[in-house]
Amino acid sequence: MTIDHALDRERAVTEEVVASFAGTADSRLREVMQALVRHLHAFARDVRLTQREWEAGMAFLTRAGHITDDRRQEFILLSDVLGLSMLTVAINEPTAPGATEATVFGPFFVDDAPEVELGGDIARGAVGTPCFVHGTVRSTEGDPLVGARLDVWEADDDGFYDVQYSAEASAGRGWLRSGADGAYRFWSVLPAPYPIPHDGPVGALLEAAGRGPMRPAHLHFKVTAPGYRTLITHLFVAGDPHLADDAVFGVKDSLVVHVDEHDGGVAPDGSEREGRWTEIAFDLVLPPEAPDIRPTSEEHR
Amino acid sequence: MTIDHALDRERAVTEEVVASFAGTADSRLREVMQALVRHLHAFARDVRLTQREWEAGMAFLTRAGHITDDRRQEFILLSDVLGLSMLTVAINEPTAPGATEATVFGPFFVDDAPEVELGGDIARGAVGTPCFVHGTVRSTEGDPLVGARLDVWEADDDGFYDVQYSAEASAGRGWLRSGADGAYRFWSVLPAPYPIPHDGPVGALLEAAGRGPMRPAHLHFKVTAPGYRTLITHLFVAGDPHLADDAVFGVKDSLVVHVDEHDGGVAPDGSEREGRWTEIAFDLVLPPEAPDIRPTSEEHR
Ligand SMILES: [Fe+2]
Ligand SMILES: [Fe+2]
Repeated sequence: MTIDHALDRERAVTEEVVASFAGTADSRLREVMQALVRHLHAFARDVRLTQREWEAGMAFLTRAGHITDDRRQEFILLSDVLGLSMLTVAINEPTAPGATEATVFGPFFVDDAPEVELGGDIARGAVGTPCFVHGTVRSTEGDPLVGARLDVWEADDDGFYDVQYSAEASAGRGWLRSGADGAYRFWSVLPAPYPIPHDGPVGALLEAAGRGPMRPAHLHFKVTAPGYRTLITHLFVAGDPHLADDAVFGVKDSLVVHVDEHDGGVAPDGSEREGRWTEIAFDLVLPPEAPDIRPTSEEHR
Repeated sequence: MTIDHALDRERAVTEEVVASFAGTADSRLREVMQALVRHLHAFARDVRLTQREWEAGMAFLTRAGHITDDRRQEFILLSDVLGLSMLTVAINEPTAPGATEATVFGPFFVDDAPEVELGGDIARGAVGTPCFVHGTVRSTEGDPLVGARLDVWEADDDGFYDVQYSAEASAGRGWLRSGADGAYRFWSVLPAPYPIPHDGPVGALLEAAGRGPMRPAHLHFKVTAPGYRTLITHLFVAGDPHLADDAVFGVKDSLVVHVDEHDGGVAPDGSEREGRWTEIAFDLVLPPEAPDIRPTSEEHR
């Protein structure tokens, strides 16, 4: 058998599999699966995947499946360290000028975080230097967004989210609404850098690749306002040593914020402070809901 | 932000991730991971993957991980129905003229199958029409391969492998050695078509794609002889209704064999038969071990 003949045989496998999805009722699922087959096969052909490497891939996915549970999501971690998560963010990012840029959602959001009043404290026992975070929520047209919902969550000074402690008391997270002028403000603690969970197969992959598991210190935001596009982003702390090697590629220059350091004095909310505290000022800018977003009904599963 | 700018941003994510693997010590792992990132990202860009579709993908892998255990391998099943398994076979297939073609290994091989003597019966309780299978094991140069090891396994007349029954008694599998002239022969039962396990996420995918779960009737062979390339293949039963839509794309024309039907009489091994029995004749041809196969030490994990 000639080399050309062998390559024809490989391409014939791909065409046969692509054709097997021709009868998929959902046209979007058909498009996605046929493209997945073509790209997956192109990968295997390009690297001349060996049988042993295929087996290693199967074993890797099996280990990832078995370490995944209600509190640990190794597949999302894999997507994160392969940059698929950030690429999906980039693909779906609005192109509206002036909008705050998005980044990865991450695995540490919880649905039932407590509501805090405007100006309240979300730390609720999280350890760290107090941090006052404030700014305005507005549209890309410059209109203040009144009553926008801000969900905020962060790791404490030891680099842990509340859900990573066995006690499971809510801390370092909460939600609030912007005020009449679109202004928001809350107290929290300054977040610390932390490693993504790296005792599983994804950690072994990072190790083999000579890559570190660290994420630079950041504060998560999810901002929703009716008629506007939901913003999922972080604020990163300027000067963090891991800004250039975030394990999940989440850093964008526009999201790196300067942290003002204070020692005592009067905070912007008028409160008298004792000891060291910090301050972040950042405006959150949302574009109108895009009319060209694919409706849910056309999406598969 | 212009469209061009948005595409640049997407490509920048890919380049950043590819660069993160530059320090991988094992050069083959580096090559494989960088190619995986490029192809995975090209897929996401090509289909304009939505956030919701990304979530569906994560949930699919999670379900596959949780249904996988010692007796069920949903990731291999996924690889099978996406044709990745057969493509890997094709990529690694020797190009020696005259060699028996290979196909997928499948999930039903077991290591500790019983040895049977040349001409013995591997059915050992498997239900079905008796089938006498015989031929010669030889090299692509035409030399008979004496003492080659043949591992054989198959589904019974109800379409089940022994390991799919809860009793777990070995049946429909065994191994033997070719004789002094390279000849092999054994009794078994005629295998039946069967569905791959389709009560999990892979089954749901096949259903959504309008694809069936059936595999045409086949007999598995693994043939090993020192100095020759191990052959992993099936013999398929000519006339099977599922030859054209094998769920795992394993069929090759050269592996479809005619089954002779008999009623009583004397079998080729000289035994007197009563009632219906069948016969398959097929020569197994192995090429010499390829000198250009990548050694194990260069492969990752
Ligand atoms: Fe985080
Ligand atoms: Fe099989």
